[in-house]
Amino acid sequence: MGNTWGQLFRVTTWGESHGAAIGAVVDGCPPRLPLSEADIQPDLDRRVPGQSALTTQRKETDTVKILSGVFDGLTLGTPISLEMPNLDMRPGDYQEVREKYRPSHADYTYEAKYGVRDWRGGGRTSARETAGRVAAGAIARKLLAERFGVLVVAWVSKVGTLGVDCDAEKVTRQQVDATPIRCPDLATAERMIAAVEAVRKDGDSLGGIVTCAVRGCPPGWGEPVFDRLEADLAKAVMSLPASKGFEIGSGFAGTDLRGSQHNDEFYMEGGRVRTRTNRSGGVQGGITNGETIVFRVAFKPTATIMREQNTVSVAHEDTTIKGRGRHDPCVLPRAVPMVEAMATLVLADHALRQQVNEPDHRRS
Amino acid sequence: MGNTWGQLFRVTTWGESHGAAIGAVVDGCPPRLPLSEADIQPDLDRRVPGQSALTTQRKETDTVKILSGVFDGLTLGTPISLEMPNLDMRPGDYQEVREKYRPSHADYTYEAKYGVRDWRGGGRTSARETAGRVAAGAIARKLLAERFGVLVVAWVSKVGTLGVDCDAEKVTRQQVDATPIRCPDLATAERMIAAVEAVRKDGDSLGGIVTCAVRGCPPGWGEPVFDRLEADLAKAVMSLPASKGFEIGSGFAGTDLRGSQHNDEFYMEGGRVRTRTNRSGGVQGGITNGETIVFRVAFKPTATIMREQNTVSVAHEDTTIKGRGRHDPCVLPRAVPMVEAMATLVLADHALRQQVNEPDHRRS
Amino acid sequence: MGNTWGQLFRVTTWGESHGAAIGAVVDGCPPRLPLSEADIQPDLDRRVPGQSALTTQRKETDTVKILSGVFDGLTLGTPISLEMPNLDMRPGDYQEVREKYRPSHADYTYEAKYGVRDWRGGGRTSARETAGRVAAGAIARKLLAERFGVLVVAWVSKVGTLGVDCDAEKVTRQQVDATPIRCPDLATAERMIAAVEAVRKDGDSLGGIVTCAVRGCPPGWGEPVFDRLEADLAKAVMSLPASKGFEIGSGFAGTDLRGSQHNDEFYMEGGRVRTRTNRSGGVQGGITNGETIVFRVAFKPTATIMREQNTVSVAHEDTTIKGRGRHDPCVLPRAVPMVEAMATLVLADHALRQQVNEPDHRRS
Amino acid sequence: MGNTWGQLFRVTTWGESHGAAIGAVVDGCPPRLPLSEADIQPDLDRRVPGQSALTTQRKETDTVKILSGVFDGLTLGTPISLEMPNLDMRPGDYQEVREKYRPSHADYTYEAKYGVRDWRGGGRTSARETAGRVAAGAIARKLLAERFGVLVVAWVSKVGTLGVDCDAEKVTRQQVDATPIRCPDLATAERMIAAVEAVRKDGDSLGGIVTCAVRGCPPGWGEPVFDRLEADLAKAVMSLPASKGFEIGSGFAGTDLRGSQHNDEFYMEGGRVRTRTNRSGGVQGGITNGETIVFRVAFKPTATIMREQNTVSVAHEDTTIKGRGRHDPCVLPRAVPMVEAMATLVLADHALRQQVNEPDHRRS
Repeated sequence: MGNTWGQLFRVTTWGESHGAAIGAVVDGCPPRLPLSEADIQPDLDRRVPGQSALTTQRKETDTVKILSGVFDGLTLGTPISLEMPNLDMRPGDYQEVREKYRPSHADYTYEAKYGVRDWRGGGRTSARETAGRVAAGAIARKLLAERFGVLVVAWVSKVGTLGVDCDAEKVTRQQVDATPIRCPDLATAERMIAAVEAVRKDGDSLGGIVTCAVRGCPPGWGEPVFDRLEADLAKAVMSLPASKGFEIGSGFAGTDLRGSQHNDEFYMEGGRVRTRTNRSGGVQGGITNGETIVFRVAFKPTATIMREQNTVSVAHEDTTIKGRGRHDPCVLPRAVPMVEAMATLVLADHALRQQVNEPDHRRS
Repeated sequence: MGNTWGQLFRVTTWGESHGAAIGAVVDGCPPRLPLSEADIQPDLDRRVPGQSALTTQRKETDTVKILSGVFDGLTLGTPISLEMPNLDMRPGDYQEVREKYRPSHADYTYEAKYGVRDWRGGGRTSARETAGRVAAGAIARKLLAERFGVLVVAWVSKVGTLGVDCDAEKVTRQQVDATPIRCPDLATAERMIAAVEAVRKDGDSLGGIVTCAVRGCPPGWGEPVFDRLEADLAKAVMSLPASKGFEIGSGFAGTDLRGSQHNDEFYMEGGRVRTRTNRSGGVQGGITNGETIVFRVAFKPTATIMREQNTVSVAHEDTTIKGRGRHDPCVLPRAVPMVEAMATLVLADHALRQQVNEPDHRRS
Repeated sequence: MGNTWGQLFRVTTWGESHGAAIGAVVDGCPPRLPLSEADIQPDLDRRVPGQSALTTQRKETDTVKILSGVFDGLTLGTPISLEMPNLDMRPGDYQEVREKYRPSHADYTYEAKYGVRDWRGGGRTSARETAGRVAAGAIARKLLAERFGVLVVAWVSKVGTLGVDCDAEKVTRQQVDATPIRCPDLATAERMIAAVEAVRKDGDSLGGIVTCAVRGCPPGWGEPVFDRLEADLAKAVMSLPASKGFEIGSGFAGTDLRGSQHNDEFYMEGGRVRTRTNRSGGVQGGITNGETIVFRVAFKPTATIMREQNTVSVAHEDTTIKGRGRHDPCVLPRAVPMVEAMATLVLADHALRQQVNEPDHRRS
Repeated sequence: MGNTWGQLFRVTTWGESHGAAIGAVVDGCPPRLPLSEADIQPDLDRRVPGQSALTTQRKETDTVKILSGVFDGLTLGTPISLEMPNLDMRPGDYQEVREKYRPSHADYTYEAKYGVRDWRGGGRTSARETAGRVAAGAIARKLLAERFGVLVVAWVSKVGTLGVDCDAEKVTRQQVDATPIRCPDLATAERMIAAVEAVRKDGDSLGGIVTCAVRGCPPGWGEPVFDRLEADLAKAVMSLPASKGFEIGSGFAGTDLRGSQHNDEFYMEGGRVRTRTNRSGGVQGGITNGETIVFRVAFKPTATIMREQNTVSVAHEDTTIKGRGRHDPCVLPRAVPMVEAMATLVLADHALRQQVNEPDHRRS
């Protein structure tokens, strides 16, 4: 259970790292949206391993096929089945994982939960699972752009101890993809790249922060009480591998302020209700206010390192393990499309939910 | 929509701040759990306004009645309906809110969403709504304690700029409730109280952080992919009014570390798989590992302040507003039972979900 | 679990027959629908016991209160909490039920399921539970009528062996309510009433059939595959106490026909696609075609009879039991508003679901 | 939407009749169930077209592949992705369907709903979609048999006007499959086969009834109120193509009886609570009582016939159409595995749901 996201724009992902394939089924995409594999592949290419020296050298092309739900170039309103074969499978790399639990991985907890585990490359716990999310997110992205004029862009804002602030109103995907580290500030990007290369040589790893902005969202998206937009965004990104924290708007730093410093005052601008500041992060009481949504996600340093660590065996004896195989010294660049995918899934779902609630005066 | 929490332990809350009553319906509580109002009222008493000079002076007793689902002192397995009347309603206090949107409140966004709004005390957006959650959470708390041996305790770890670390393995509810600010470190508590009183006199407000520990949780709770335990915890607390951030285990600070510093090494202790450190926060790959779950929630400073602020009217004209009525200069002490309630709802739900997945060898 | 109906127009009911109250929470009703208790009470009055000599003499007024979700006469888009106190509780009538399982009731199965049971009047298994459904259905009825022009009307078409066909395009509520048996054919109604009175004197009971028509439904409501409109209608009415069968359009009798006799040929009428016959019952492939939806529901004879029957005790010994207390010799007249309620809940849900799927050309 | 079945044993199907493939994702199958394609293929082979002269001559092998969720022959507790390629696609057969709505098919309603339609072989509305259900049902069947000792068997009990009663306690799959018509009464089977061959030559079609028995079900499965077991069974089979009616136990015929004739008296047998008769059909108050569950499903005559019929074009002009291509003169034999599949999906779901509710005394 727990492999489905969304109420109205619903995504179910499936697949283990070294099984035959991975994929996703999207149910609830509205009909008559133009769609082909070419709309999806670019997002997958940003997530795929082996893009640069900064990421794992596993060779996967993640070539997506649409198996249903699209006819003559248009969505049908029926489920869209997406599939990507697994190509570069070397289970031999993982024989040690069969016998020992990797520290800060999910080997032990899956076995505790299920009493059985696919030890090849982490099985279902592998970040490879996120390819299905990214493929589904690309459809959500197109729906948001074409039907609602909403744009989602994320970038790396911190790697290890190197952080930088960028203007959430202006960052473009082109700027983000200008360097393999996906930080739009080029000077910081260079230093981040150097830091990642240093830890890689050292057999170690780094974590960091991804910032995400959602621009063009109309007021009124999100639901009160449990399904607040920020609550769904938090769940969405905290469901990504290696994420340890979420904050929106002023976030943790905002706790230092007084109410008089923190409140976002309203004013009228061109007939539109605006706020002078955006410490709310585009959401008030769980519902969008028309300002840019800005949130940040913390990712821990990659758990797999090329160093010997203490651990226990499946037979419950103390032992040691040393990472091998092909892994990322820093997950951040590949986390960017994952965060964008989850944000688009949340927003597409709430866009559709608001179709139901929308008062008549807004429709006409 | 969005007023229901949970898959198997399901809670639906209802009620506006100044309507006839507020309440909750709990569906999915297992049968034969001893239950009466006396199990629920203490948690509500911790959330109720007017507890101390630190909180709003609205006088509500939040006296709960169980209207269904319990017979002869035992739960029946049928829905448990919980209800609390609204007593201290002074809609006259809110006439200005009828005409103007309060900064950093949800007045504007609700109107944008629904085209209609109950302006009395914030209506459904009021923190009063959380009484239903706390009542339901008290049932979850009892289920967790009696059937699973799980204990949830939260406390205030930061108010404004005053923070303190406490031992998540040891903090008790008695320590938390020793002072009205609900920080178990007494020296810090005194300084926090002084800080809150200072801003109250100043007509201003403070935010802060609540830390929550879940002790005694067995390994294996939580679901892979979208319903990871930390994802559900994040959603749960980010659905609380005024929350702006969530982190688990090492959280945002963990992004400064290298993998070799961050990983939690496994070792055997008394036949049990343990970790030497707990930067994972008790959860790996979305599933509990048997260590204490520790997470933190950031709350912004209370939006209502007794100062004049710029805003706009419902007629979309620039204007000003000044808080009046009865409000909290600092929501943190009352946020403690809210965070506990949401944590217990998440854990009770996953406890039941694991009944289904549990491998036979664990049962026998 | 299982106490919630609907995806977008969601109803959760609660309450035992002899608890403090019964009620329902409606989540997802669109905002700005005019609503007051006066819209709901008439439907409840049709379901209430003691309406005539044909039904149980338990005296309940089922006076409904709206506790939330409505402000200044309009729905807010927030949950609508509905409550009806239980007045005429005589648990003394049920002492024997505490010790013995009533044949063809749910006493035994509830105890088998939960290991505990509220034996007072059947507890949650009582048909009294349907009051919450009828109250919620009245809101759905208003939404359907005012926003979509859809009308739902049901009537008794068979009691015992006495059946009659009425014109599904024309039956009115006024005709239905003209007699206490709720059969719009007056000659048949008289014979049915005589039959019910005869079995009542005999301490026995009768079953029958309710037919329901939905008029004015546009084409396009319903979802493919699992949530076909007829599937949801079937589930809805098969969830009512005492129902044993469902059929739509030609139903079971249609299996006698050949395809050439059964098919509904299309033709154009006034620019509208119509069918010459309606053996489909208004639904094709799970989706409405714009013709009147017609379905029939079989109800078994009331299980409680004033005769001695063999049964077993809770101690698992053979024994006998004889009905006492206040019960319906024929549930059919009171089943009419129940069937209407369930039909309106299904249709309101699908009306909202189609808001999401509706192609743009339909909107403009 | 509407392509997912179940709460805990969840199945999502996807695929159009003439797309690349069809399939299903099963989420919630418990871990460590032995499973391979060989467990699934036999059920698919019973549904596949071209089995005999009685069914459509479309040539599909429906060869299933398991793409995820199984490792070393055991289920992992993760989603099981099932896929079957579409082989025999002749869209040329359907050019007329592109321009005209087939009577009593879903061509018109899909276009009314979505504003777009895959006209090749009915697209998503094709009975081909049920292959995904049957594949998923085979997994549910294995779970029910191995973990719970529950057996599901269905058969054809009526074709056109030819009906027969069989003993629901005894019919075996071997008896059912002894003839291509799948009626275990051989004499009746022969007459049914002759009737089908007659209408086929005549370019016409027949409907009929499938009866289904569930044996070995323990008491206590099913949920009160909306998710009664019979309600879920009704929805499940009414979601199948061409089904027009559902009845359980005494069904529609039971409305002729008096309560004194209809009630199922309890008695003790070998320490077990039993009923002397089974007019309840194995379910009381929505919950199983340990007796065999028996229900019947009405299927209309196949809509596609080789005769000219009146209809309208997509341009909304009156016209005529005549069936061509490859179709079933009688869907009943292939409906048998479909009904079994839906019954197993319902029962597997409720089996898992009862794990959560089950009182402790039952577990120990």
